[in-house]
Amino acid sequence: MASSWHDTLTIETIEKERANPPFDVRALSIAQHGSEKELLLKERFMLEIARDPVFYMGDVHDLTKDELRERTMQKIGSLVHCVQNESIENFTKRMELIGLFDPGFWTRFGVHYGLFLGAIRSGATPGQFSYWMDKGVVTCQGMFGCFGMTELAHGSNVAGLETTATFDEQTDEFVVHTPNLGATKWWIGGAAQTATHCSVFAQLVIRGKKHGTKTFIVPLRDPMTFALLPGVNIGDIGKKMGRDGIDNGYIQFTNVRIPRAYMLMKHTQVTREGEVREPPIQQLTYGALLQGRTAMVTDAANTAKKALTIAVRYAAVRRQFKSSPDAELETQILDYPIHQRRLMPLVAQAVAFGFTALQLQRLFEETSSALEALEPGDPNLNATIELLKETHATSAGLKAFCTWATLDTIEKARQACGGHGYSSYNGFASMFTDFAVHCSWEGDNSVLSLQSGRALIAAYRDAMDGKKLAEGTSYLNNIEQVLSRKCRSNEELVTLAGIEEGWATVAAHAVRKAGEDFAALLKQGKSRDEAFEACSQVRFVAASVHTSGFIFRQFKKAVEKIEKGADGVREHLEKVAVLYGLWQLEEKAAFFLRSGWLSGSQLDHAQAKVTALCYEIRLSAVPLVDSFAISDHILNSPIGRYDGDIYRAYFAQVRKSNPQGKEHPYFERIIKPFMHRPTQELEDFDEMGLDDEIQEIKEEQEEAAEEAKAAEEEKKQQLAEEAKKNAK
Amino acid sequence: MASSWHDTLTIETIEKERANPPFDVRALSIAQHGSEKELLLKERFMLEIARDPVFYMGDVHDLTKDELRERTMQKIGSLVHCVQNESIENFTKRMELIGLFDPGFWTRFGVHYGLFLGAIRSGATPGQFSYWMDKGVVTCQGMFGCFGMTELAHGSNVAGLETTATFDEQTDEFVVHTPNLGATKWWIGGAAQTATHCSVFAQLVIRGKKHGTKTFIVPLRDPMTFALLPGVNIGDIGKKMGRDGIDNGYIQFTNVRIPRAYMLMKHTQVTREGEVREPPIQQLTYGALLQGRTAMVTDAANTAKKALTIAVRYAAVRRQFKSSPDAELETQILDYPIHQRRLMPLVAQAVAFGFTALQLQRLFEETSSALEALEPGDPNLNATIELLKETHATSAGLKAFCTWATLDTIEKARQACGGHGYSSYNGFASMFTDFAVHCSWEGDNSVLSLQSGRALIAAYRDAMDGKKLAEGTSYLNNIEQVLSRKCRSNEELVTLAGIEEGWATVAAHAVRKAGEDFAALLKQGKSRDEAFEACSQVRFVAASVHTSGFIFRQFKKAVEKIEKGADGVREHLEKVAVLYGLWQLEEKAAFFLRSGWLSGSQLDHAQAKVTALCYEIRLSAVPLVDSFAISDHILNSPIGRYDGDIYRAYFAQVRKSNPQGKEHPYFERIIKPFMHRPTQELEDFDEMGLDDEIQEIKEEQEEAAEEAKAAEEEKKQQLAEEAKKNAK
Repeated sequence: MASSWHDTLTIETIEKERANPPFDVRALSIAQHGSEKELLLKERFMLEIARDPVFYMGDVHDLTKDELRERTMQKIGSLVHCVQNESIENFTKRMELIGLFDPGFWTRFGVHYGLFLGAIRSGATPGQFSYWMDKGVVTCQGMFGCFGMTELAHGSNVAGLETTATFDEQTDEFVVHTPNLGATKWWIGGAAQTATHCSVFAQLVIRGKKHGTKTFIVPLRDPMTFALLPGVNIGDIGKKMGRDGIDNGYIQFTNVRIPRAYMLMKHTQVTREGEVREPPIQQLTYGALLQGRTAMVTDAANTAKKALTIAVRYAAVRRQFKSSPDAELETQILDYPIHQRRLMPLVAQAVAFGFTALQLQRLFEETSSALEALEPGDPNLNATIELLKETHATSAGLKAFCTWATLDTIEKARQACGGHGYSSYNGFASMFTDFAVHCSWEGDNSVLSLQSGRALIAAYRDAMDGKKLAEGTSYLNNIEQVLSRKCRSNEELVTLAGIEEGWATVAAHAVRKAGEDFAALLKQGKSRDEAFEACSQVRFVAASVHTSGFIFRQFKKAVEKIEKGADGVREHLEKVAVLYGLWQLEEKAAFFLRSGWLSGSQLDHAQAKVTALCYEIRLSAVPLVDSFAISDHILNSPIGRYDGDIYRAYFAQVRKSNPQGKEHPYFERIIKPFMHRPTQELEDFDEMGLDDEIQEIKEEQEEAAEEAKAAEEEKKQQLAEEAKKNAK
Repeated sequence: MASSWHDTLTIETIEKERANPPFDVRALSIAQHGSEKELLLKERFMLEIARDPVFYMGDVHDLTKDELRERTMQKIGSLVHCVQNESIENFTKRMELIGLFDPGFWTRFGVHYGLFLGAIRSGATPGQFSYWMDKGVVTCQGMFGCFGMTELAHGSNVAGLETTATFDEQTDEFVVHTPNLGATKWWIGGAAQTATHCSVFAQLVIRGKKHGTKTFIVPLRDPMTFALLPGVNIGDIGKKMGRDGIDNGYIQFTNVRIPRAYMLMKHTQVTREGEVREPPIQQLTYGALLQGRTAMVTDAANTAKKALTIAVRYAAVRRQFKSSPDAELETQILDYPIHQRRLMPLVAQAVAFGFTALQLQRLFEETSSALEALEPGDPNLNATIELLKETHATSAGLKAFCTWATLDTIEKARQACGGHGYSSYNGFASMFTDFAVHCSWEGDNSVLSLQSGRALIAAYRDAMDGKKLAEGTSYLNNIEQVLSRKCRSNEELVTLAGIEEGWATVAAHAVRKAGEDFAALLKQGKSRDEAFEACSQVRFVAASVHTSGFIFRQFKKAVEKIEKGADGVREHLEKVAVLYGLWQLEEKAAFFLRSGWLSGSQLDHAQAKVTALCYEIRLSAVPLVDSFAISDHILNSPIGRYDGDIYRAYFAQVRKSNPQGKEHPYFERIIKPFMHRPTQELEDFDEMGLDDEIQEIKEEQEEAAEEAKAAEEEKKQQLAEEAKKNAK
């Protein structure tokens, strides 16, 4: 029985997919990584990580939460060596890669080094900082920190936190206290099993007066015995949707005393006498927020590329249905137009996110340097703050829409792999459940979108007042002209310049709509806050459209910086960018039609072009995802392997993870008694003769009754006869 | 320190939410359940299940896969009693509820009773059926079945399966064989730990000739010892994204012999001589497909209602940020317009799905009865088949778009609960991972959408040929008139009739576009199959728009059947239906604008109306989700509790699931050695004096070289002198 299917068919198929791509794969990869140096560094780290037994990933899907946590703790030791010996840039790159295959570990490590140490760095006086250095905070010797911000009843609203730190003048101490259940510190990463100290956000209270939320370092456990210190109650938050490698916990403080010196006092100081000295200006916290968001946009881009590498390679080698009865082989599913439509736009989007993330990293570095270079009274102060504000608003929108889109991409990529996408061993399950939290932490995505929309309204009002806006919202500068634009032709519609103009026009319309609704609400007498609330939906829409256009612009700028050449990179990336821009236009087509920029027949043209580009990009889709340069170790997915040998690898993984020949865990206990239970015969209650007995009882009773009746009759007659006698 | 927050605040808040709803909650609940009888039955079953210790759900989040599987097997015994003693209608209702909180068990039970027994019912001759009855198939005594369809390399394409069943005339047996790795039976639910028999889909081969895919009952294990039978190799598929209660496995057959009588021969027969008798007409398999899809649309509606019950109740009692500094309490998050926009349209959609599911159930029952009533040569044959075909196409689209939308709803509801949505104990994590497989099995959603689109193109062509279409696509009957319609006014736009007309017009445009593209492709000389492939995207769009309109129509019809009365049900459901219709219009607004039915300013009006309706529906959102009538046991989510006592319940659940006071599992082993490792002093290699030594070695070598050179010079001179001497 000759069959066309054979074990190595998939290998042959993926080899063919790699023949003669229209671009130099290495050059395309370099373009997406920023430079050859960056790519080489990434490759060096991927090799080191893949060979490090601590980062073995073959068995993680079957570990219990407790096993996973222990495994995760083991990795920390290995990385502390790197953090002490590597430049910060290199270490950041290494962590970026680790976060891509072990997000739980990334979080656990980041809680100490990013959040706890970060809180001390930004909040401690120099003397306080060296105190904690001496205690071992940088090397984790004798201490390990966690970050005590959120409470059971308070997440987003930091100012509303209810934990108190009350100054006791007599002892020169703060008393840290959890006043009610809702104030229990909740979700605290590292609290359950790792931390000795916590940077606690609490309401500073002095002589009955609240002075707002400040940060206090509170010892939790004896570092030698790990016993909880007096007044500290810590428990485990337990099972989560994902990231089970991090030991989130809850903490309740009951009159816990810490020295006054454990309040971080770089900004606000409390004197021995209980006098509070507030900083002359509120600290600029934009920097820290920006760093987190930049990391998350980068992670969104990388994770989307990871999911799509798997889905595209699988779709290239997976065959299903013959195109005609006499075809030798079944059709590769990537050859189905609908499958191209499912995956190619997402690939284009991931590339767009990648360039956006690079750009955001650059912006973050620039603004950080600008901030550091600022001197008091600097003439650049205002300009720098303006730049920072814009970057801040833009990054809020980017964090929200990129993490949403990537979560969606992971699930769509999973579904594109059919049933095998549902197996844990192919990686999508944990990718989704680990990534999902990105939409909630570091600012809930909806809240961040509204922040971005609020900034856009402010920018619109500034532009109306004649102020010249910075680059990100420069389309609002000549708004009347921008608003009135129309797409001139089908030819222009499918060019980078044409699409850019379209996005500017549509964003201008959306922002104006939000701005006008806001103004109308103010006119109705609402306060600014009320007006912002009441126009939430249009604000949200403005942020959404603005952000799509912003991402497209980053992609276009990055592409246009690449020289046209024999390597074909510029030409191919242009196509990918056009696909991204037009597909997003199609997704948000109502705004384009509504704005008047696009006509109905132009939309038809754009849609046909998207379909055509999906086909074109598909032709070299495998080399394109190869250029994402994600190692098999990081993919950790048999069906996404580079060499295409998917079925043998998948089968081997399943067998290794589920060894045969073990005794059946509950056959004797449950299955056998169930399957061999005796049939309960329907009992024949007739044999009991119950109804006959009832009949007998009834007859007896009736007989007795008749007898009694007869006796009574007899008695009556006797009495009657006696009466007659007496009457005679 | 007086705080406005207190432990029972949430209880008081939710009580206020229930005061004075504009409808009778019970009456609204009855309307959504089809009848009071249905609702009472559901309540009876929910009570029985909640009290049954077998269905205790408090600890499921922390069970390992192996523990969960054992627990799941225990439930089967309890349910077999019901399946034997309950009417099929009642049992179906009971399973519907069980599927809502334990989908893994639902699957494990369904594999035997739905798939395996179903295969025998539909494929066995009467004699074969009684044989398997006697073997114990109905009571699971001595046997338990699994369903061997999909293979490692073949899922969707059943005709392409590669397992063979070769007839051996000599022994009157079939030899069942797995010819290659790709033909390994894969994902077979129940195979890993439960099944004794499998209904194997295999290519019938007789004398070297293939006769297509047929079904064979193959014994797998000795029911007394559970030892694998000769030639049968079974392994565990292991960890999945969700539904870990079902033991999926793989099976490889190596020349396994079964009697000829184990091929199910109701349709195709193989005689003793190896003669194949094919049925005169292909069997109608629509019925079985319809049943699966109906169940999945029902599950989609119920699951969406479950997720939204939790998210709405939580949003009602969760408070965050004060609307003004002197507000006594923080604002309920459900009072934020953006939160209303996030949840209320999804609530409306869930209600719409509920009515659609009821309608589909009715349709399924009607078509089943019609099919059963058919006699050979019946004059109703063609009409019945037409009805069946349309229902089949409609149900394909409904299965796809409803399961997609519900998966999306679960994740959106989870995100609406912020961080606490990420805790496993609040239920969203498993709800998502369990539900996700609905998008792939029983027909991949993309493939089903295209089937629906294909049927729409066929209907369009029929309509063009003057054929009168049945109700589902009746808008194509007067297509020219439908196409040219325009929305007449803002007032009409927000009525049920107006919205219905809009959907009909837009669907007509989408279907015509698909039909015309298809016709153009045929004209270009493509085959029908090629043309269908090439117009996949427009087909998909047609199916999407048609299905949205179809669902809206079911909702509208259901609402209009309800009498207007003092209970306020009709009025409120009308609002919910308008919200659903307009929100979907907004989501797909590009089609409405493109069709010409809707103008730009009408779209603005619709969007404003959606926002206004979100606010209106929010006012009684808690009573509305109460009317979904889902018990706390089924919700299994502390933050979604009926009584609003969410924080105490959540805290209690977390503590119970993660008892304190256990010894730290790896403090001594890992944390202590790490945290108290000695600091490695930077060694001072200068003390080693290496560079001095190198200098010395160098000097010695140079000295030696000089000496050697001098010696050589000397030698040369000596030689020169000697030569001179000799020359003299």
